[in-house]
Amino acid sequence: MSSNDAFIDLLARAKGASRALATATTAEKNAALEELARGLEAAIPEIVAANELDLRRGAEQQIGDGLLDRLMLDESRIRGLAAAVRDIVALPDPVGEVVRGSTLANGVTIAQTRVPFGLVGAIYEARPNVTIDIAALALKSGNGAVLRGGSAAEDSNRVLVRLIQEAMTRAGLDGDAVQTIDEFGREGAGRLMRARGFVDVLIPRGSAGLIATVVQESTVPVIETGAGIVHVYVDASADAEMAEAIVVNAKTHRPSVCNAAETLLVHRDAAEALLPRLLAALTERGVSLSGDERARAAGAPSAASDQTWATEHLDLAMGVRVVDSIAEAIAHIDRYSTKHTEAIVTNDFANAERFLAEVDAAVVMVNASTRFTDGGEFGFGAEVGISTQKMHARGPMGLQELTSTKWIVRGTGQIR
Amino acid sequence: MSSNDAFIDLLARAKGASRALATATTAEKNAALEELARGLEAAIPEIVAANELDLRRGAEQQIGDGLLDRLMLDESRIRGLAAAVRDIVALPDPVGEVVRGSTLANGVTIAQTRVPFGLVGAIYEARPNVTIDIAALALKSGNGAVLRGGSAAEDSNRVLVRLIQEAMTRAGLDGDAVQTIDEFGREGAGRLMRARGFVDVLIPRGSAGLIATVVQESTVPVIETGAGIVHVYVDASADAEMAEAIVVNAKTHRPSVCNAAETLLVHRDAAEALLPRLLAALTERGVSLSGDERARAAGAPSAASDQTWATEHLDLAMGVRVVDSIAEAIAHIDRYSTKHTEAIVTNDFANAERFLAEVDAAVVMVNASTRFTDGGEFGFGAEVGISTQKMHARGPMGLQELTSTKWIVRGTGQIR
Repeated sequence: MSSNDAFIDLLARAKGASRALATATTAEKNAALEELARGLEAAIPEIVAANELDLRRGAEQQIGDGLLDRLMLDESRIRGLAAAVRDIVALPDPVGEVVRGSTLANGVTIAQTRVPFGLVGAIYEARPNVTIDIAALALKSGNGAVLRGGSAAEDSNRVLVRLIQEAMTRAGLDGDAVQTIDEFGREGAGRLMRARGFVDVLIPRGSAGLIATVVQESTVPVIETGAGIVHVYVDASADAEMAEAIVVNAKTHRPSVCNAAETLLVHRDAAEALLPRLLAALTERGVSLSGDERARAAGAPSAASDQTWATEHLDLAMGVRVVDSIAEAIAHIDRYSTKHTEAIVTNDFANAERFLAEVDAAVVMVNASTRFTDGGEFGFGAEVGISTQKMHARGPMGLQELTSTKWIVRGTGQIR
Repeated sequence: MSSNDAFIDLLARAKGASRALATATTAEKNAALEELARGLEAAIPEIVAANELDLRRGAEQQIGDGLLDRLMLDESRIRGLAAAVRDIVALPDPVGEVVRGSTLANGVTIAQTRVPFGLVGAIYEARPNVTIDIAALALKSGNGAVLRGGSAAEDSNRVLVRLIQEAMTRAGLDGDAVQTIDEFGREGAGRLMRARGFVDVLIPRGSAGLIATVVQESTVPVIETGAGIVHVYVDASADAEMAEAIVVNAKTHRPSVCNAAETLLVHRDAAEALLPRLLAALTERGVSLSGDERARAAGAPSAASDQTWATEHLDLAMGVRVVDSIAEAIAHIDRYSTKHTEAIVTNDFANAERFLAEVDAAVVMVNASTRFTDGGEFGFGAEVGISTQKMHARGPMGLQELTSTKWIVRGTGQIR
């Protein structure tokens, strides 16, 4: 059943193969993942060579050091990918788990049971590691995957997708379940967003602009991920040493990722004792600080604007504001938060509980670094992304978030 | 903070009030529901009078008997609504439930905890009972609700929403959390679909056309409900009496609802012995039958077309097809199903398990009537609708499906 449309043919092949994958056993899926880990290690020279083509093109197009670093695959990173795939082998298979169930008064039994979504679409940019992460998680959860990895990583992704397909074939599964649509360019991305009926869920990973486009244009259900304007609020009663450790870690441990802090809010009663110390520690680590009037008085070199609070810097920049109360901190967060992760540092029990209850975000924290919002840290293994929406999945998404459910009903002839 | 835009003002009021509702106690929410049940009973004459205006307008506009019946509220139905509200009081509050949690190796504790969505939007048509069902379920689950009940039920809904607001106020909650936008007409419905940031989830209930429009136009996340092209497949080994009882019940018990069967598939080996009996039983109850060639030979009076299989009749019409195998039955279902409910009648264990595993629908059944796909039957109390999508909720949606989650993280200064 081939049409004149290569794109539809590809989706139909992936859809057909994903049906068989939905009923594959855990042992079969794990065997394919083991094959993939081995295949990645065996193909290191080939992957590096393909990646070098991407890197050269990226350098010519001056895409910037940050993007080039994300794009780069060397032997050590490829071995890391293989290890991540093996970690997924060790995770429990979510498919078949009975979420809840009961026997009705008339003897009919009902069991809500996890099933794969079917075919998962992913749109991302210049991150070939995401190709392996998402395909491996999709495979383990019994889903097919249609991947749009973007032109910047096209050569790397072509090799990686072929390795995934080959690993599945070696394990006796249908490799057609995983496909790249990079060859169809931007038009392919647009068609993927409208492939309702073929694609069951679409996951964009990348810039706020990419995610906004997918949300606007997609008729396929979308799980939003990513953008993080993350706040750390240092309350009046905060321990000075703990506050410094958390603020420095949240901002500087890995500033380019979504769980890194972007804004520091400090209660005025802590400002005098604490703020100079916090600002000095951040400055020492190369953070460029923009503050409101009171933060400038305490040492922030430049002036913050409304734009400062509304920006996900993703580098060593941070806005600093002194607030008069926890209510003012929560109001600031409410206005600027992307509802990813929000943290309070405090020793006041009531304030901690109030912050946890009132702040609306995927993850709310007391006295811990925002860097803990991560599938690996939460024990999920590799993560699909961090959902910042409220439907279906919220926060780090692992295998379970790649499943739907189905009610299985068994009777002996009951009618109403 | 009033703008020049009455619609935005209304959404902002609902959003503000829904925040307070999110942290209301179960006792407070139950008190408001008790007040609502009493308020409905006390206002029976007023509700009936308002409903008569809607009914008169509907009759003038010749909207049809089925719609008029759905629109109608009399004393008995209003008492039924009050009873349904009291049933919701008795249900457990989903808010605050810890779905899963653990203590990480470093001592940080994480707990995924149910929270209200925030503000739930609903678009439906000519069913004033849905106003009470959805508002009561939203209230119990800590959500505000913005309701677009349609012009046909405008007078009834205006009174019902006022009663809800008054009941909340009497119980000390902010009645602004529940609003109707009927006064804004069709434009209001369109704006509700684009009210991203105000409305957290949108639930359309009604015709396939309405649902398709909402899915296409909405930028707010949507939970699709409803359309049911439901099949009953009678396998070769089916018990004749059981097959007849289930087929008749699935088709005729309440043909206007989404879990009623639309198509009967019969294995050829059962056709000779069973089909005449099934067709006679259906005909006797007024079902008009369209069959394929073999079903016509067994007594179906008219010829089925592709259109027959693709139609949700919602009345006493049914398509009948004889298939050569369970595989052919599954393939037919796969092609025409709206993924609502699919049933097999069989005494063959392997076929039962195969049907349950391979058919992709919210609910798959063996030897039970498709009429059991219902929140009340499943023990959820009143239902928000029946989700036919795979994200977030699938099948009958109760209180739990009106919640999201939030990860609560507590540390003692941990960093990465």
